[in-house]
Amino acid sequence: MSIGDLGGIGFEIALSAHEEAKKVACPLYCVSPEMARRAAALLGRSLPSDFECVGQEAAFEIQPGCVSAQAGAASYASFTQALELSVEGRADAVVTLPIHKAAWAAAGVKYKGHTDYLRDRFRTEAIMVLGKPGFYVALFTDHIPLRKVCDRIQAGSLEAFLLQLARSVEAGPIGVLGLNPHAGDGGVLGDEERSIEAAIAAANHALGAARFEGPLIPDAAFLPRVRSRYPFLVAMYHDQGLAPLKALYFEEAINVTLGLPIVRTSVDHGTAFDIAYRGQNPSIRSYLNALGATKALLA
Amino acid sequence: MSIGDLGGIGFEIALSAHEEAKKVACPLYCVSPEMARRAAALLGRSLPSDFECVGQEAAFEIQPGCVSAQAGAASYASFTQALELSVEGRADAVVTLPIHKAAWAAAGVKYKGHTDYLRDRFRTEAIMVLGKPGFYVALFTDHIPLRKVCDRIQAGSLEAFLLQLARSVEAGPIGVLGLNPHAGDGGVLGDEERSIEAAIAAANHALGAARFEGPLIPDAAFLPRVRSRYPFLVAMYHDQGLAPLKALYFEEAINVTLGLPIVRTSVDHGTAFDIAYRGQNPSIRSYLNALGATKALLA
Repeated sequence: MSIGDLGGIGFEIALSAHEEAKKVACPLYCVSPEMARRAAALLGRSLPSDFECVGQEAAFEIQPGCVSAQAGAASYASFTQALELSVEGRADAVVTLPIHKAAWAAAGVKYKGHTDYLRDRFRTEAIMVLGKPGFYVALFTDHIPLRKVCDRIQAGSLEAFLLQLARSVEAGPIGVLGLNPHAGDGGVLGDEERSIEAAIAAANHALGAARFEGPLIPDAAFLPRVRSRYPFLVAMYHDQGLAPLKALYFEEAINVTLGLPIVRTSVDHGTAFDIAYRGQNPSIRSYLNALGATKALLA
Repeated sequence: MSIGDLGGIGFEIALSAHEEAKKVACPLYCVSPEMARRAAALLGRSLPSDFECVGQEAAFEIQPGCVSAQAGAASYASFTQALELSVEGRADAVVTLPIHKAAWAAAGVKYKGHTDYLRDRFRTEAIMVLGKPGFYVALFTDHIPLRKVCDRIQAGSLEAFLLQLARSVEAGPIGVLGLNPHAGDGGVLGDEERSIEAAIAAANHALGAARFEGPLIPDAAFLPRVRSRYPFLVAMYHDQGLAPLKALYFEEAINVTLGLPIVRTSVDHGTAFDIAYRGQNPSIRSYLNALGATKALLA
């Protein structure tokens, strides 16, 4: 377990879900025993005797709900340790709790977030997928400014993305969203849909099957009748996929990274600084779903 | 009632909802008696004797589920007639059924859609609002290519928009969404949020009250705890607001245009060419909600 930013809700979720987590895994927490004790004390709780802490970061004062360089450095250390335990075979998989990107930046970490780091560590175009059992959304672009999205919609790179996705995902039609309002409305509202059409046609040709369909109208792709046709969607950018997904399934949703040599799943929520260490009992559903999905991916 | 594109589901909805509609209004349908008869015949149904048709468009052959210049010209004529009846006081309000933008373009109509036309007809920055009673989303930009959105995020024009909105919407906090993933994550993922912050501060200063809050993280703004705090949101672009809204409330949602000298509401769905005239009984909920909201706005 990559414990996430200690100023956020991650530690509280791990602690609250510990008994449930033990039913499907033998959790190893990448946080030092001292910092786990401090975080538990801030929550007014004690650590279970079998809460196994393997982290080695230096102790610091936790600032609940604040961006802090120390917390950023610690969450980065936790994440990289969890990955290496998995690479070395000392852990079966990595489940990540939320980091805060500004804390990583404050700590001088050169990666924007988990997915960036994974791409560099494993030299592969890791694909970020979010969803819940039976409905997933893959992001063609993810943590980049919206301004940079349009120029990234190129037929060649999208085709390569679709082909990599097809190798990682079980059979079934995959819906590919357009970029513009109304998928461009026949070109009246933008023309990147031509590139998306070309990528779909090329990917289907290479696969010898009409696996991909689209471009779908983005604001209608999450309606019940579309979701039931496409248990898997490809979104062109972060909020296009995640805003409707979270609106529908927030506390259930999880994050899976495809295309890596290790299994990595994650909760699909942030650090929630506004409710951290305030006795608000953050939901543990996404975390437990991530553990369940991890088990399914390892099966 | 602006009858919408006769190749789509609008006429069927108006016909199916006629008895319910009479309970809250005296519906006047802006479609010619001959075209109403033809559409009803295609549906295998007859027209009620009190289905009052006031349109004057020339008759043409309806092509179910197809973009057609004739249908585009007819839906444009229906819309403009409905507006003028309202301006002249011969109708209390306009409720619009869906047009198809490509059909308007095929017919040589120089407007992209309803909202464009309204802005020109009434020489005002009409504000497009979608939602359902108790939760509405206003769009700062609407029917433009995504590529053009980022440059439109300017503090001055957003401030003017917020001030116009504040004049049209009852008391209560209004949440303003950021533009980038994670609202820019402190600048790491884009910096348009600085302009949004400046616009919020300037609008609140001009109002002498902290009416607007944000920038909110876009993909978290539709979660239950955020929705309950902000019954009214401002989205920076079309799909940012509409994709989550439709995912949550599709068949209930309606469209209201603020800032006009007349009352105009609309269904929040398209022509649904894929199910038009196919015995699929399209939902009449959005249409009846629009009628209900119209009555509330006139009260």
